[in-house]
Amino acid sequence: MKTNLKIGILGGGQLARMLCLKGHELGYAMHVLSGAPSDPAALVTAHHQRGPVDSFAAVKKFAQSVDVLTFESEFIDVELLGRLPARERAKIRPRVALLGQLQERTAQKTLLVKHGLPTLPFLSTASVAELKDFWLKHNGRVVAKKTRFGYDGYGTFYIESEKELVRFVASESLANFIFEPKVKFKRELAVTVVRGLKGEMIELPLVETKQVNSRCFWVKGPIKHKKLSRLSSQLRRFLQREKYVGAISFELFEISDELYINEVAPRVHNSAHYSLNALSLDQFSAHLLAVSGAQLFKPLAKSGGFAMVNLLGRSKREPGLVAPRSAQLHWYGKSENRPGRKMGHLNTTAQTPEKALALALQDERKFQL
Amino acid sequence: MKTNLKIGILGGGQLARMLCLKGHELGYAMHVLSGAPSDPAALVTAHHQRGPVDSFAAVKKFAQSVDVLTFESEFIDVELLGRLPARERAKIRPRVALLGQLQERTAQKTLLVKHGLPTLPFLSTASVAELKDFWLKHNGRVVAKKTRFGYDGYGTFYIESEKELVRFVASESLANFIFEPKVKFKRELAVTVVRGLKGEMIELPLVETKQVNSRCFWVKGPIKHKKLSRLSSQLRRFLQREKYVGAISFELFEISDELYINEVAPRVHNSAHYSLNALSLDQFSAHLLAVSGAQLFKPLAKSGGFAMVNLLGRSKREPGLVAPRSAQLHWYGKSENRPGRKMGHLNTTAQTPEKALALALQDERKFQL
Repeated sequence: MKTNLKIGILGGGQLARMLCLKGHELGYAMHVLSGAPSDPAALVTAHHQRGPVDSFAAVKKFAQSVDVLTFESEFIDVELLGRLPARERAKIRPRVALLGQLQERTAQKTLLVKHGLPTLPFLSTASVAELKDFWLKHNGRVVAKKTRFGYDGYGTFYIESEKELVRFVASESLANFIFEPKVKFKRELAVTVVRGLKGEMIELPLVETKQVNSRCFWVKGPIKHKKLSRLSSQLRRFLQREKYVGAISFELFEISDELYINEVAPRVHNSAHYSLNALSLDQFSAHLLAVSGAQLFKPLAKSGGFAMVNLLGRSKREPGLVAPRSAQLHWYGKSENRPGRKMGHLNTTAQTPEKALALALQDERKFQL
Repeated sequence: MKTNLKIGILGGGQLARMLCLKGHELGYAMHVLSGAPSDPAALVTAHHQRGPVDSFAAVKKFAQSVDVLTFESEFIDVELLGRLPARERAKIRPRVALLGQLQERTAQKTLLVKHGLPTLPFLSTASVAELKDFWLKHNGRVVAKKTRFGYDGYGTFYIESEKELVRFVASESLANFIFEPKVKFKRELAVTVVRGLKGEMIELPLVETKQVNSRCFWVKGPIKHKKLSRLSSQLRRFLQREKYVGAISFELFEISDELYINEVAPRVHNSAHYSLNALSLDQFSAHLLAVSGAQLFKPLAKSGGFAMVNLLGRSKREPGLVAPRSAQLHWYGKSENRPGRKMGHLNTTAQTPEKALALALQDERKFQL
């Protein structure tokens, strides 16, 4: 592991920012390609290249200037990346072809099914009749998810009445969606796995995630689950077969004690932000070590429990920060506040997940967001 | 606490770098004035101003561009800072007059004595006869320390024989030194206190520090000591009276169960680097919160024990890094390696200080430095 290995990140949001901050600590030279010098990641490194991540010329120039290329969002243009010279394409981790499958929901679901991973049934169709059959079969409760660029509830629609079905069919092109039954789950959980370039894998603790208005509000852990070890083996086999490199998060539904994969995010993920303060190895460091070919070691927990609470914008006013009493603050430096926007997060550790969450929520309430 | 408060740091070394990295997390806009864009701190922020910290024009311009001004070394030119316009002078924390006293050893010692703080006797003299008397009185074992710019053993001389005394007197100007008895201590310890702008104070755990070749090699803690609570009260009273703002570290000698202040560093300090991973509030964040006027809360420990091991250069070769097995790496991104140079450090937590130290040393041995 040489010093000053140049790692380039496509995108300049909070995930890129945290990758930069941890990359600095590990001795990497962190390079960022993003649209504005005021982007969260652009502010925390001397090596910012200003440019659109969807411009071939900008990405090519950026790729040529670094040793390893990674990204903060799975919604990058894989077709564009595929056109890069072979030398630059080889720097991209995780690999482009796999990314193409994971960023499109039909392909992602098909991939999960192909690998025998537990996931809810789905329908991909252009036929109104087929959709109606599926809707009836699932007790008149269906979720429609855009096949591309959906996140945090964007591009997700619930069809829970005949009226909603008629309206949906009239206003949307069915081919842009996949359909799943809307299920009652006990909890939403998540797990992050990181696979190194040489194939070794580490798994971060299982966590519970709480969504409010389709956006992650808090995470706590570690959570024990009797089906976890089986799922872990399946996930590891999947990643091994697909030669995945880097961090990947699996959002899970817990339904009658079974775990189902809801969504896959082939990148660092909000559900593992707690790792910055609760483990000996956080997800950002682990991702960077993985994509740069360094050895990964199993993270050690610092406490019996941990929690993360997102600081979500509640207005368009300039936020008022406070020094947390027991949490550790991670502020993203975004230039504008707005309702629902992820502005930062708080991490805590304590003897139990519940105690950690209570501490984090106590601090969260004091922020003027 | 508003977002994007501009905090300026004079100097671009590893302490400035870690201040920047933690400042980013807290939502501050971190500005750095230093000589080269390759300086450790210059690499981790978008706001680097290139310039010498001893140039009045450069410092003035820099001070005008920030809201709060602090520094990473106590050896800044206080005379220069004193000449800044009143508006800019008011931004400097800790305050300049106090800094002037602390950066000069005779004044520092005099200040400690004035406040009744426990410290070893000292001699400041231009007279060879007086020095000889002092040397005889202290059993022929004396330490000579340059009054200015001494650190990590630089500017420190041991006079332990008549021959050494004669040689010292012949080659050095006595007025540039203070003299102290060379004592046998049980351990070297250190404690860091942070005082907020409104007067509240927090104290980090007492630690043991191990020096090798006059340079800090490792730190472990927390250490219990029956004389600590008395010393704490004295230190707090001292800081209160002097209206100190920010982090300040006290290096201590333990001699026959008594604690003596050896040196005072009015800034963040190597002996408290462990706090980055072992506490809910690290020294860098605490210093920034203090100088920016935010409220300070007592740090919570994450574990029974913690340790820090410095990664000291052993050659001029490019270092070979490894991913630590249990430690957290903080690499400083210095452009050149050399024997004895502080290139980075490793932090660990464990049930006891001893276990944490063993883990950190295990990882340290794998680095090619």
